[in-house]
Amino acid sequence: MNTSEDEVIARLRAIGARQARGWKALRLVAGDDAAIFLPRPGYETLLTCDWFLERTHFLPTSPPDAVGWKCLARAVSDLAAMGGQPRCFLLSLALPRTRTAGWLDGFLAGLDRAARKLRCPLAGGDTTRRREILISVTVVGEVRRGFAVLRSGARPGDLIFASGRLGEAGWGLSLLRKSRRSSQKLIPAIQKHLYPEPRLALGQWLARKRLATAMMDLSDGLSTDLPRLCAASGVGARIRAACLPTLLSSPSRRDKDAPSQGRSLALALNGGDDYELLFTVRPATLAGIPASFQGLPLTQIGEITAPRSLVLESPSGREQRFSSHGWDPFRN
Amino acid sequence: MNTSEDEVIARLRAIGARQARGWKALRLVAGDDAAIFLPRPGYETLLTCDWFLERTHFLPTSPPDAVGWKCLARAVSDLAAMGGQPRCFLLSLALPRTRTAGWLDGFLAGLDRAARKLRCPLAGGDTTRRREILISVTVVGEVRRGFAVLRSGARPGDLIFASGRLGEAGWGLSLLRKSRRSSQKLIPAIQKHLYPEPRLALGQWLARKRLATAMMDLSDGLSTDLPRLCAASGVGARIRAACLPTLLSSPSRRDKDAPSQGRSLALALNGGDDYELLFTVRPATLAGIPASFQGLPLTQIGEITAPRSLVLESPSGREQRFSSHGWDPFRN
Repeated sequence: MNTSEDEVIARLRAIGARQARGWKALRLVAGDDAAIFLPRPGYETLLTCDWFLERTHFLPTSPPDAVGWKCLARAVSDLAAMGGQPRCFLLSLALPRTRTAGWLDGFLAGLDRAARKLRCPLAGGDTTRRREILISVTVVGEVRRGFAVLRSGARPGDLIFASGRLGEAGWGLSLLRKSRRSSQKLIPAIQKHLYPEPRLALGQWLARKRLATAMMDLSDGLSTDLPRLCAASGVGARIRAACLPTLLSSPSRRDKDAPSQGRSLALALNGGDDYELLFTVRPATLAGIPASFQGLPLTQIGEITAPRSLVLESPSGREQRFSSHGWDPFRN
Repeated sequence: MNTSEDEVIARLRAIGARQARGWKALRLVAGDDAAIFLPRPGYETLLTCDWFLERTHFLPTSPPDAVGWKCLARAVSDLAAMGGQPRCFLLSLALPRTRTAGWLDGFLAGLDRAARKLRCPLAGGDTTRRREILISVTVVGEVRRGFAVLRSGARPGDLIFASGRLGEAGWGLSLLRKSRRSSQKLIPAIQKHLYPEPRLALGQWLARKRLATAMMDLSDGLSTDLPRLCAASGVGARIRAACLPTLLSSPSRRDKDAPSQGRSLALALNGGDDYELLFTVRPATLAGIPASFQGLPLTQIGEITAPRSLVLESPSGREQRFSSHGWDPFRN
């Protein structure tokens, strides 16, 4: 089967037109040279883009609908980390000829589901042919003027929080690599690896209430991402390993495939793809942070320090330098 | 040499910060989860993205600064085609380890030059490592509300115009492929292939004066792009081959490497990468279109017809169906 670029574009255009129906913010969707977006008065526009490449960011065996879901969800997560809401997205898609039929159907189904769930319609894009699947997603969002939460606002004494459970997606990936059993799909860790949910409601709530002084999403792992937040804020941090919400720290956990204690700590520090929020809170507003937000646990994992070093306090109380073992494509 | 992702990001960030200095529209550049853009009241936001991939869109031997220039210029051309002005861009960049030193320097120099020339600073992006160079550029622009020129506004009787010379970039590419001589770089056709100039001033003028009823940029060749404009407008077209501004139709042309008449016509119809503007004009406003705009020739090449067919009238007066031989990556 030979699908021409115009046919691929026509399919994407039909999906975009359906998704954007009733959205006044998009005056025109895919089909012209550019999409037209109407910004809301009183709001700033947020812009972010993310690679999602076969073999680098997903496995050739990944279910196509998971690829469709995740390529949008992970880009939207960057907006959650600013306290913003997504408004529309652009899709750059390169496909091998062999993936333009059945694979494309599954991919578009997952993408469509994510676009509806995240209220973020497809506005435009570009397609081409390539040996491997290449995806780049640009998400356009909005935040009320002056309310965006940056990485640079953390101050010494601020308390560091993380949402959800850390290392879960990394564990899901290792399970996926070990087994091809489809029953694996029911395990929450695999679910989280394949279909991450950006923490939009939490990010927006923290921004609206001005509770977070700095915020970012955990995409490459705590040991890589926390140094970025600290560098942007010009501060250091002390993390307490015993406080980290690892796979084993949840009491309701009954997973017979659960990792060892050491492994679950390593995953919480270095595992990528969790798309949880990392944020800092002034001691004076600590009382405003609940133990959980809409069922999602919020855990205090350490505090911001004036010395720029990053310290990890082990469960036994021993201190060590926090070193980055998270995911860096230029070093792997 | 091992350049980590954070180092590549730091270089891009420094360039973005320098480019955006004094631009009030960008409150924050690369370095946070998302960039923050302040939309202008009374304007709509234009969004477009474009692939630029090694071996698909440029040669591995292309000068790195030409790759940097062209990846931005061709995306900005989509905004020119709407009558808009660029405001900022996002860069998704994947590099092999071997290209992070000298190649990256050249690429960033070309990109920086294009960003300054086109007044379009880098606002953010994403980087990763990959065997081949992959680039996706998203450009954000603005147009005064209600002034964007779409592809869908052409009506029967409208006259079809093209800017510049058609087929020149395609001819430049074929010369580049034949020879590696560096003196080749001085030939205008090669210059146009490597360093195309989006027709921003022309597009904005046509939009502001409401002279163009439909417009698009010629990226894949007239025989591929004109059918897209006609399909969007629900019309047909008649093109006069003798009127096309080919490489041979310019009297000032003294190129000893010039193509034959047949080849120059084929290039004008099917050659890609010219980034000239294709636009339609109501007969009543025809007098408003000058023979050239800021030195760029504007040529009437045919007219819009009610029957949806596309007809090419050969220089001898013979009519034939216009068929698409332009560049389609899914068919090549």
